[in-house]
Amino acid sequence: MSDISNLTGLKRPDGRMPDELRSINFQTDFCPHAMGSVLVSFGRTRVICAAMVEHGVPSWMRRQNVPGGWMTAEYSMLPYSTQDRKQRDSSRGKLDGRTVEIQRLIGRSLRAVFNLRDFEGKTLWIDCDVIEADGGTRTASITGAYVAAKIAIERLLQVGKLDKNPFSQAVAAISAGVVDGEILLDLNYAEDKDASVDANIVMAADGGLIEVQGSGEGATYTREQLDALLDVGVDGIRRINALQEQAIQQALSQG
Amino acid sequence: MSDISNLTGLKRPDGRMPDELRSINFQTDFCPHAMGSVLVSFGRTRVICAAMVEHGVPSWMRRQNVPGGWMTAEYSMLPYSTQDRKQRDSSRGKLDGRTVEIQRLIGRSLRAVFNLRDFEGKTLWIDCDVIEADGGTRTASITGAYVAAKIAIERLLQVGKLDKNPFSQAVAAISAGVVDGEILLDLNYAEDKDASVDANIVMAADGGLIEVQGSGEGATYTREQLDALLDVGVDGIRRINALQEQAIQQALSQG
Amino acid sequence: MSDISNLTGLKRPDGRMPDELRSINFQTDFCPHAMGSVLVSFGRTRVICAAMVEHGVPSWMRRQNVPGGWMTAEYSMLPYSTQDRKQRDSSRGKLDGRTVEIQRLIGRSLRAVFNLRDFEGKTLWIDCDVIEADGGTRTASITGAYVAAKIAIERLLQVGKLDKNPFSQAVAAISAGVVDGEILLDLNYAEDKDASVDANIVMAADGGLIEVQGSGEGATYTREQLDALLDVGVDGIRRINALQEQAIQQALSQG
Amino acid sequence: MSDISNLTGLKRPDGRMPDELRSINFQTDFCPHAMGSVLVSFGRTRVICAAMVEHGVPSWMRRQNVPGGWMTAEYSMLPYSTQDRKQRDSSRGKLDGRTVEIQRLIGRSLRAVFNLRDFEGKTLWIDCDVIEADGGTRTASITGAYVAAKIAIERLLQVGKLDKNPFSQAVAAISAGVVDGEILLDLNYAEDKDASVDANIVMAADGGLIEVQGSGEGATYTREQLDALLDVGVDGIRRINALQEQAIQQALSQG
Amino acid sequence: MSDISNLTGLKRPDGRMPDELRSINFQTDFCPHAMGSVLVSFGRTRVICAAMVEHGVPSWMRRQNVPGGWMTAEYSMLPYSTQDRKQRDSSRGKLDGRTVEIQRLIGRSLRAVFNLRDFEGKTLWIDCDVIEADGGTRTASITGAYVAAKIAIERLLQVGKLDKNPFSQAVAAISAGVVDGEILLDLNYAEDKDASVDANIVMAADGGLIEVQGSGEGATYTREQLDALLDVGVDGIRRINALQEQAIQQALSQG
Amino acid sequence: MSDISNLTGLKRPDGRMPDELRSINFQTDFCPHAMGSVLVSFGRTRVICAAMVEHGVPSWMRRQNVPGGWMTAEYSMLPYSTQDRKQRDSSRGKLDGRTVEIQRLIGRSLRAVFNLRDFEGKTLWIDCDVIEADGGTRTASITGAYVAAKIAIERLLQVGKLDKNPFSQAVAAISAGVVDGEILLDLNYAEDKDASVDANIVMAADGGLIEVQGSGEGATYTREQLDALLDVGVDGIRRINALQEQAIQQALSQG
Repeated sequence: MSDISNLTGLKRPDGRMPDELRSINFQTDFCPHAMGSVLVSFGRTRVICAAMVEHGVPSWMRRQNVPGGWMTAEYSMLPYSTQDRKQRDSSRGKLDGRTVEIQRLIGRSLRAVFNLRDFEGKTLWIDCDVIEADGGTRTASITGAYVAAKIAIERLLQVGKLDKNPFSQAVAAISAGVVDGEILLDLNYAEDKDASVDANIVMAADGGLIEVQGSGEGATYTREQLDALLDVGVDGIRRINALQEQAIQQALSQG
Repeated sequence: MSDISNLTGLKRPDGRMPDELRSINFQTDFCPHAMGSVLVSFGRTRVICAAMVEHGVPSWMRRQNVPGGWMTAEYSMLPYSTQDRKQRDSSRGKLDGRTVEIQRLIGRSLRAVFNLRDFEGKTLWIDCDVIEADGGTRTASITGAYVAAKIAIERLLQVGKLDKNPFSQAVAAISAGVVDGEILLDLNYAEDKDASVDANIVMAADGGLIEVQGSGEGATYTREQLDALLDVGVDGIRRINALQEQAIQQALSQG
Repeated sequence: MSDISNLTGLKRPDGRMPDELRSINFQTDFCPHAMGSVLVSFGRTRVICAAMVEHGVPSWMRRQNVPGGWMTAEYSMLPYSTQDRKQRDSSRGKLDGRTVEIQRLIGRSLRAVFNLRDFEGKTLWIDCDVIEADGGTRTASITGAYVAAKIAIERLLQVGKLDKNPFSQAVAAISAGVVDGEILLDLNYAEDKDASVDANIVMAADGGLIEVQGSGEGATYTREQLDALLDVGVDGIRRINALQEQAIQQALSQG
Repeated sequence: MSDISNLTGLKRPDGRMPDELRSINFQTDFCPHAMGSVLVSFGRTRVICAAMVEHGVPSWMRRQNVPGGWMTAEYSMLPYSTQDRKQRDSSRGKLDGRTVEIQRLIGRSLRAVFNLRDFEGKTLWIDCDVIEADGGTRTASITGAYVAAKIAIERLLQVGKLDKNPFSQAVAAISAGVVDGEILLDLNYAEDKDASVDANIVMAADGGLIEVQGSGEGATYTREQLDALLDVGVDGIRRINALQEQAIQQALSQG
Repeated sequence: MSDISNLTGLKRPDGRMPDELRSINFQTDFCPHAMGSVLVSFGRTRVICAAMVEHGVPSWMRRQNVPGGWMTAEYSMLPYSTQDRKQRDSSRGKLDGRTVEIQRLIGRSLRAVFNLRDFEGKTLWIDCDVIEADGGTRTASITGAYVAAKIAIERLLQVGKLDKNPFSQAVAAISAGVVDGEILLDLNYAEDKDASVDANIVMAADGGLIEVQGSGEGATYTREQLDALLDVGVDGIRRINALQEQAIQQALSQG
Repeated sequence: MSDISNLTGLKRPDGRMPDELRSINFQTDFCPHAMGSVLVSFGRTRVICAAMVEHGVPSWMRRQNVPGGWMTAEYSMLPYSTQDRKQRDSSRGKLDGRTVEIQRLIGRSLRAVFNLRDFEGKTLWIDCDVIEADGGTRTASITGAYVAAKIAIERLLQVGKLDKNPFSQAVAAISAGVVDGEILLDLNYAEDKDASVDANIVMAADGGLIEVQGSGEGATYTREQLDALLDVGVDGIRRINALQEQAIQQALSQG
């Protein structure tokens, strides 16, 4: 993929190469009451991801006799996560549209690699709260949500509360975009603001695509640009998968 | 694109070829109080799209002194649009997540080809209400919304309430999906329910992409499948563009 | 009744005689997913009325062990139904008072000729959505709601899902008012705006009154005026009953 | 009117004649912080009615540059007003439909005899809270609301905060109904529950009708019955007018 | 306690001594539909308190299999209770924070002397509605709530619907504050507004403290001041207990 | 104070003496977008406290022409802060009563030592989000809120955006309770659950009391117990003040 971005040879404001990820870090078990949790950071973007297990399934599943369990996600930006204070949804009395979109995406992404039939009668809650936002909060949330959820599932298996691992494989996500005509991986906020195209890619560890969303921001884009965004994104996700695995192993080995 | 779908040579339940659109119809000026309106149908999917102009811009624009005008969309499925009655959002007291996602997509799609600076001090409201849902309501909504909005804008130009056409070009949308391993264009509800991948493509008349969303439905998909979905979708949108233009001309010639 | 209105011998702005109904039309089965539906028009006032059947009854009936079934109505004015765009109740987060009043009236009117005991364990939902408003939307809704509901009930009887017809007779409604001292039937919006008295009459086919509402609009009215309004209204409803019957028969003969 | 009810010569459970009002009482200035207030009772039905003046008019009037002032009413049944505790609207998070209907009726009824142009720049709030409900709470509310509002207006005139009396005349209301075929005035709850027809009549002191609402309760009714209900109601309201006047004079003479 | 307040020997604006309660009155059975009720007044502060019994317990108790019954309180200030009209919470669509705080305090205070285990399967609703507010509405509410609740419980015992009295003893409350450096009991609104410290004391009849809340109002206070506030408050509550007992006995002797 | 607790000489489950604080830690500048912030921990109770400055004051201040600025607080428990997942207020659609109570207490406590007149035209937002709850979240929030707010104010002074320090002194808070008859300082969740009395004390650095709240939990308490709780609390707050000062100095020295 690097063919395109290397054409310019230019570094980005923060010194990264076009196809370079920000520094990624997973501080696991950040929330001890959760079965699995992580404070994930992609550069200055920091998100708490926590996985908690509840007995029972949502009422719509009970009513319709849907077998298996459920997994769902909630996402919020804490008021101090942005430069200007972000009003709480609970104060506004309703979720804003962007919040709804993102939490649906997180849930859908994880369910794509999670067999609900192997989670009979339980609900896995994924909570993602952004402490500091510097671009890419939704992809960081998906990436961290998997880490938190996988740790939780492994612990349920260890204590015999689950017979079979519902996860078929790992999942991670990254953003990419076109800024000044150049393809950039893992945009920070300053880059994102200036991007003419913004793509979010969610991919399973085996390379299967789960979600591709490419949006022109007051502009259109070409098939070639979409291809280049996918190239750089797929490559980035592979590198993230390795970091996820490491973090999970470390947490499990510690308790 | 037809190479892939022709491989099977199989027709679909409703007799369509894999890359065949449903019968598309535009009944313009369906809502006489709106400046532009259309009852658009893609097969049995029928959506009322109406465009109305209001003086003034949203308060957030006034507060932040954003120049230009605004365009926004609202979407709803009427209770009788689905097999089982769909509860009204106004009765539930809040919009459901899917509604929010879709109306944001409609607004974003139209704004991509609409210069808000040429719509100074005005708001263009796009309302999309689904009368009958048989798959593809969001892409039918975008497609119809452009027709309604374009008619409204032309009439504003005609009566001198607008100096310059804010639309740079047309926009349309279509869905495509993978069902039983085959690439199908413009899925109806029965096909959509069984699809392992569901893609929505929004494209401008010059071929520029505005929005690409490909989601695995409890499954993943390959780059090749995404390419094939885009091929068949792009091709379909070109055919829709011609029908849109026809409908707009006819409405304008009639008054 | 015509004695009073003929005194003037004047025609109305749209050429109607004082006791003349607007052109009334029923486009049945407008919403194929509903068991019965109609797009009813009284001149330029157009309302979608749909009847859908749900298994089960409201929780308050279950809690109180009320026998029989239930029938209820919801009403809305779509944003483009009025000259100036009407904000959606779902966006405002609550129903406005007028909406609540009207949907309660529709439900009560139909229940007056509907034996809930013959609808055991089921709920009949009546949805009325105004596409174009030009006065008399509540009476058009009641009139259309009966047509939609009757078609639905007949079909339930035909397929054996119901043993006995819960409807004892037909119901229809019309408005009348006093404008410039003259009694007028079936006011359009321009007339309604200038009316000093506004009456809505709901009547069963056997001439039994179900609901009479006469309101002075910033003015009072006499017993004689109320009588004249009732005369002209009762006469109008009889003519509407015949049109309803015709529409129902036609829909049933077609499937 | 008594011709019809006297046919039977029967007394009602509480010993009243068919056309007899319950004992009506006005305890004025029940709420000292209000400019005018009354605890009105019709038998065991007791309602607090209070009138308060606010500077300024609603935002919709300011936006549309509507001249004059405003008058509006709010109505609630307190939790202990009914045999079974009634949940607060504030706990349910929304007004129920009946509440909305009634408070709109109260406001409309008073505005019919109140010239908003003579109340420039002010809003008159009418609050009606039912302490004990035994039938006829809406007509008692209208009747008491006038007393409270009139006292408030007279005091504004006395202290020179108003130049001209916006009230053109008094207004009162009463219910009547058909129970077991007999016309009864001023139904209590037990009678109301069994009524086949329920009418509410709002009338000005000069005999002009303001609002007539006659509803069949799961039954229909005849023109003759409607006439008899109006006869008995009109007669009852005249008697109430005298009591209102007395209460107002007494309050004003006391301060 | 009087040592401190007597230091000044000054009377208050309304002629009271510093440690003097306002005139306290209990008009019992003010709301005949409630099992127990009272219109309590502390000077010009007047609050309706009503106790009603419902079968069943809240869903959270059922879900968690908590044994016993429940008691909860709701509080509101009616719009005309204050000098400037107070907007209804039901119109604002949510409870304000002060309302929430006070109704929680009322419920907690009564539950401290009420054995929920002796109220198996029932809920006791306490409703407190302020008709006139002149300071101390929360303490008047607690004081009146006990009277209403105790009457209700005694009647349940009398008719055999309860085997054992869940109340272990009486509870009452009073406010005290520091105004211009002086300790005052039972502040009215004018005094409360000027107080630098505001304390609310809830105490059981045996002298056990239930709730002590002392707040500096834009100021801090000393341990000595807190002690003096408690002294004067405890003394006042003892006098209130006697009045409560009297009111309860009178109500029970009358039916 | 230690006289009482030392009587037993018993240590607590976590090894603390009765009057011993948990280990207290302040991780300042935890939220870089906030002007001042801290992750405060009292043992396992961890709360993010952030202070952000907004231009402008609430609309009620503008309407009433109240001079000066404003300071307000919001509090939430994140879903994973408790053993069982806590539902978000934004999902419930309203704040729960406990949340409202606590955020009002935090705001009131800080305003007691903050001169709003020295904060003209600005609003200081204090956000407290509990990451891990193990008792004492409200007192930890107040304690951390002061640290965050003080850092923010000092930085405003440093860059000249503020002329005068609105803080007159520091504020901190601690809980104390009676467990098995013994007075304990700084209860953790296990102790709090078993406490018969629960007190929260907010005090200024000069020893002035700001808020004292003592609640019997299904029990009453004596004046002597209240005194002992105050003794141990006051002593604890003095020790906390020193830690706050240290944390503030460290943050300011680092930037």
